[in-house]
Amino acid sequence: MNTFGTIFRVSIFGESHGKWVGVTIDGCPPGIPLSPADLIPDLERRKPGASGTTPRVEEDFPEFVSGVYNGVSTGAPLTIVFENNNTRSADYAELQNTPRPGHADFVIHEKFAGYNDPRGGGHTSGRLTVALVAAGVVAKKVLKDVEISARLIEAGGSTDIEAAIATAIEQQDSIGGIVGCTVSGLPIGLGEPFFNSVESVISHAVFAVPAIKGIEFGSGFEAARMTGSVHNDAIIDEKGTTASNNAGGINGGITNGNQVVFRVAVKPTSSTPRTQHTWNKATGSVEPFAVKGRHDLCIALRVPVVVEAVTAIALADLQLFPRHI
Amino acid sequence: MNTFGTIFRVSIFGESHGKWVGVTIDGCPPGIPLSPADLIPDLERRKPGASGTTPRVEEDFPEFVSGVYNGVSTGAPLTIVFENNNTRSADYAELQNTPRPGHADFVIHEKFAGYNDPRGGGHTSGRLTVALVAAGVVAKKVLKDVEISARLIEAGGSTDIEAAIATAIEQQDSIGGIVGCTVSGLPIGLGEPFFNSVESVISHAVFAVPAIKGIEFGSGFEAARMTGSVHNDAIIDEKGTTASNNAGGINGGITNGNQVVFRVAVKPTSSTPRTQHTWNKATGSVEPFAVKGRHDLCIALRVPVVVEAVTAIALADLQLFPRHI
Amino acid sequence: MNTFGTIFRVSIFGESHGKWVGVTIDGCPPGIPLSPADLIPDLERRKPGASGTTPRVEEDFPEFVSGVYNGVSTGAPLTIVFENNNTRSADYAELQNTPRPGHADFVIHEKFAGYNDPRGGGHTSGRLTVALVAAGVVAKKVLKDVEISARLIEAGGSTDIEAAIATAIEQQDSIGGIVGCTVSGLPIGLGEPFFNSVESVISHAVFAVPAIKGIEFGSGFEAARMTGSVHNDAIIDEKGTTASNNAGGINGGITNGNQVVFRVAVKPTSSTPRTQHTWNKATGSVEPFAVKGRHDLCIALRVPVVVEAVTAIALADLQLFPRHI
Amino acid sequence: MNTFGTIFRVSIFGESHGKWVGVTIDGCPPGIPLSPADLIPDLERRKPGASGTTPRVEEDFPEFVSGVYNGVSTGAPLTIVFENNNTRSADYAELQNTPRPGHADFVIHEKFAGYNDPRGGGHTSGRLTVALVAAGVVAKKVLKDVEISARLIEAGGSTDIEAAIATAIEQQDSIGGIVGCTVSGLPIGLGEPFFNSVESVISHAVFAVPAIKGIEFGSGFEAARMTGSVHNDAIIDEKGTTASNNAGGINGGITNGNQVVFRVAVKPTSSTPRTQHTWNKATGSVEPFAVKGRHDLCIALRVPVVVEAVTAIALADLQLFPRHI
Repeated sequence: MNTFGTIFRVSIFGESHGKWVGVTIDGCPPGIPLSPADLIPDLERRKPGASGTTPRVEEDFPEFVSGVYNGVSTGAPLTIVFENNNTRSADYAELQNTPRPGHADFVIHEKFAGYNDPRGGGHTSGRLTVALVAAGVVAKKVLKDVEISARLIEAGGSTDIEAAIATAIEQQDSIGGIVGCTVSGLPIGLGEPFFNSVESVISHAVFAVPAIKGIEFGSGFEAARMTGSVHNDAIIDEKGTTASNNAGGINGGITNGNQVVFRVAVKPTSSTPRTQHTWNKATGSVEPFAVKGRHDLCIALRVPVVVEAVTAIALADLQLFPRHI
Repeated sequence: MNTFGTIFRVSIFGESHGKWVGVTIDGCPPGIPLSPADLIPDLERRKPGASGTTPRVEEDFPEFVSGVYNGVSTGAPLTIVFENNNTRSADYAELQNTPRPGHADFVIHEKFAGYNDPRGGGHTSGRLTVALVAAGVVAKKVLKDVEISARLIEAGGSTDIEAAIATAIEQQDSIGGIVGCTVSGLPIGLGEPFFNSVESVISHAVFAVPAIKGIEFGSGFEAARMTGSVHNDAIIDEKGTTASNNAGGINGGITNGNQVVFRVAVKPTSSTPRTQHTWNKATGSVEPFAVKGRHDLCIALRVPVVVEAVTAIALADLQLFPRHI
Repeated sequence: MNTFGTIFRVSIFGESHGKWVGVTIDGCPPGIPLSPADLIPDLERRKPGASGTTPRVEEDFPEFVSGVYNGVSTGAPLTIVFENNNTRSADYAELQNTPRPGHADFVIHEKFAGYNDPRGGGHTSGRLTVALVAAGVVAKKVLKDVEISARLIEAGGSTDIEAAIATAIEQQDSIGGIVGCTVSGLPIGLGEPFFNSVESVISHAVFAVPAIKGIEFGSGFEAARMTGSVHNDAIIDEKGTTASNNAGGINGGITNGNQVVFRVAVKPTSSTPRTQHTWNKATGSVEPFAVKGRHDLCIALRVPVVVEAVTAIALADLQLFPRHI
Repeated sequence: MNTFGTIFRVSIFGESHGKWVGVTIDGCPPGIPLSPADLIPDLERRKPGASGTTPRVEEDFPEFVSGVYNGVSTGAPLTIVFENNNTRSADYAELQNTPRPGHADFVIHEKFAGYNDPRGGGHTSGRLTVALVAAGVVAKKVLKDVEISARLIEAGGSTDIEAAIATAIEQQDSIGGIVGCTVSGLPIGLGEPFFNSVESVISHAVFAVPAIKGIEFGSGFEAARMTGSVHNDAIIDEKGTTASNNAGGINGGITNGNQVVFRVAVKPTSSTPRTQHTWNKATGSVEPFAVKGRHDLCIALRVPVVVEAVTAIALADLQLFPRHI
């Protein structure tokens, strides 16, 4: 199931080496000014280019297929596609025999009975995040006065990110990182007490981003080591402003009007230059394995804008639910 | 929205001080033997009673309303209710003026324009987790050969849980903890690459449990500090067995046949015996505040069985999706 | 799947001879005054009692389990149950061998692999419509200024309903009927152009009512015999008022501000006093069969209030979707 | 909401005069052979060309964007687009002032606050049915041994369809018709007793097709005039075969193994050559109005393949639900 949301519904499609990848947003309100140019800044942030990211050049020009007329959303399904114009059709038949460690090659082959498109990971490719970013830009516009900001706050275990990247390049091994995200300007009352708590909905969206292995809100795992008298955020005015924000802007699953704060853990890029071992279906034994091709040493560098995007998608949907105040 | 799942759909209802709380499961397969006695062990695990939990006695006898005939599920909606027979209708009017720090009192009042039932937290009460546990037992039966096991692995920052509880009692301040959960026996191929990744679906369910502030799969946040060559799990046989399990049993959002492993952070119980501060709507100022009543000093003690329950609910739903192998 | 709706979500549960049948509404707005007394008029309309309906006495007192506090909806899941206090546990084991013609006995047994509750049809019983009627009353309150009115306009092929009933009693054979329904006061713009057209959503809900075999909107089947110049409704003012209403208040799947009009066909009650034939599993041959028990000769007499209820449920959900005007 | 289905999920997008219209199927099983050529026969049946249909030539070549690899479905989202290469961008600004009677112009303008794409009806265009037909072909393949057959059985009130068309051409006025559909080869047990009865699900899908104003199953509206002893279908063997098929293959909302039979009413094409009247926003009065352009005199001629398509979509979804026999 490649759809997310109840009212603002986002569906993605496409494969790494197909002609296009794309996204359809159903339930986008009409009247939102929207042009390809609006998407460029976030698309640029997702692109490789910095040290530690792949040299593969992707143009990523968003083509609006439907749902926009005269530069404004119409309320009809909004589809945006991106051409895949820089793919190298390597010898993926070979890959079929040697599922890459840390990748989904093995499980996708099993799940889809071998009918999956293996080229570049097929549908299970980081390439699809371009579609998430596009939808995220639209979601941010729906959220209007809400400010979502994610950035890499730690890489390879260090808060000196440039140094960490330099080390990774030197050691020719991929590294992970931690992305912090804040959301300001949300109203009180988004989310539900149990199954659709704000944490439920954001984490659901965030774990759609490849390579993410953990999420924590507010004081997060540190909360487990605090006492209640320290952790509780004193309410200090009639708007619900709190003296501290250990709750990360969420009480009982519902936004409390303070800044929503969360962090996500990004694992090291699975495609590391180092030689690894994996099962070889052809030989029936474990064999050394080297990933060819262009890959990011630190995919976490490109994750913040994708985290912003899925967060915006999740919150836009919650925002469009009927409010009672 | 108080429903979770697409095929195996779980809805909860009720208030802390209403007559009943309950759960309806729609889409439960027929033919599953099911009696109130089957639910008792997990219901017992959820009950307070150990040191550090509230002395409030709850009988928690599950009454089967529908969907079970001759001790076997029928395939029709399965409803189970629990009577609330040990409630103390304290002066909740007072609470209306002083929203408890760390609780949802303030946001629920705003979200529902003041129409919410304030007695004991109303619908937003840990009492509802009894319904989750009941549904979890049914889900575990649907999963048959799958073994789900959660336990408290750390409390108050210590792995010596008894000592941590003793300290909390001595200091009269609530503490949090970390719950670890493992799932064995899952087939390869559950979950989807993006929006319904196994991490997405489990985290969505887990954050429905009150007091949880973080979740991490496999090596989790530690992964952010590892290199790719260390983190990647080498595949060592044709079944997809891996030499290590940093992925926590999930690749690309999909189960890989290895044990699914995750940990959750539980914040300290919001209702601590210590005096705190909160906004008083009547006086229009911040005032000291003491929580009355019987409360758990370490709610994390009661969380493992609830985590098992929501995990089972999430996985039962994924398991019932059509498989292609 | 026993749930209907996206925002205003209605789920029913229970069996004909279980202890209770009930309904949960998730997504009901807070602040709606609601008491058991509010439900009585519609529940009375559903009861048997008139000529041609079953003498079985049902008390049908609605017990509010959750979601209502101080006589007003809270915004939490709203559950209402009805006790089944007048059931006769006949020899349903016998029925297991002789599936009643026109009933779901045979298919339910097959669908649920024989685990279904056979007593009185189990979950597949007209008894469940009491839960629909209860939800319908809540939905009508959500719709506020909308007036929904359904009535029996034809029975046994005659518009003289009393005469038709008299004939049915005399001939001791059940009869069907046609129910007409009008909805006034709807805003322009409910519904979607394709999959969630107003006709799609209403018909989906209406075919949840047992015994309904057809639905037509506006001029309906007669439209198939009209010319475009006759059928098209001329728009005569800036509000979209039309000179005629062949469209039944719906253009392109969307309400146009005029009265929504539709009719449904109700088949004759399957349980007719006449001897019929069915397959006998025990003897392995077709045998004569007589339905015992108390049954309505013309179930269509009780259908209008149920049609109103499901129509209200469908429209309340559409009404709660975000509007853009 | 432009999506239909729970497991086999179909979403359509595009506008009449945009660059493409298309469809995404999420949840299509892998391993289904699929080529553009497979779609041609049904696409041809949808095309205009016969007497009484518009002379507009549409090429309708399906371009597979994703979800198909080496001529077989992969299990990933399956997207197909069609280029709109034969549009005439008429003076639609004029149309903005004079909403066409029988069309959705007026309501769409209101619903989307005037932001809708007005060219050729925008998203609310019969053009979108090309996407439904494409999805229908895939659904038919999912259904494998099921045979769905729809045909026009009446036009302009006559069963002599050619004569009816000739009269319409002579009188220069559009006409409607009735389409009959049968489905053979369905298993026993599809559908649910209440909200997702087979009638609910099929009618929901069928009313997504423009111009349909009624649907009846089995004996349909005629059932309202029959007695129970005549209407009930005697079960005559252990497979549930019935002596008659007044139920149209459905009992209690669930397929009974017999042929599913239904008929739909298609209204006359709204765009008739005859002069009509409508509100003119510019002049503020009702004025004569003539529809320009190329239009079908009897759109019902093109409806059968679209009805087959949406029926297949609905049944494929039901078929993929877990079965218990």
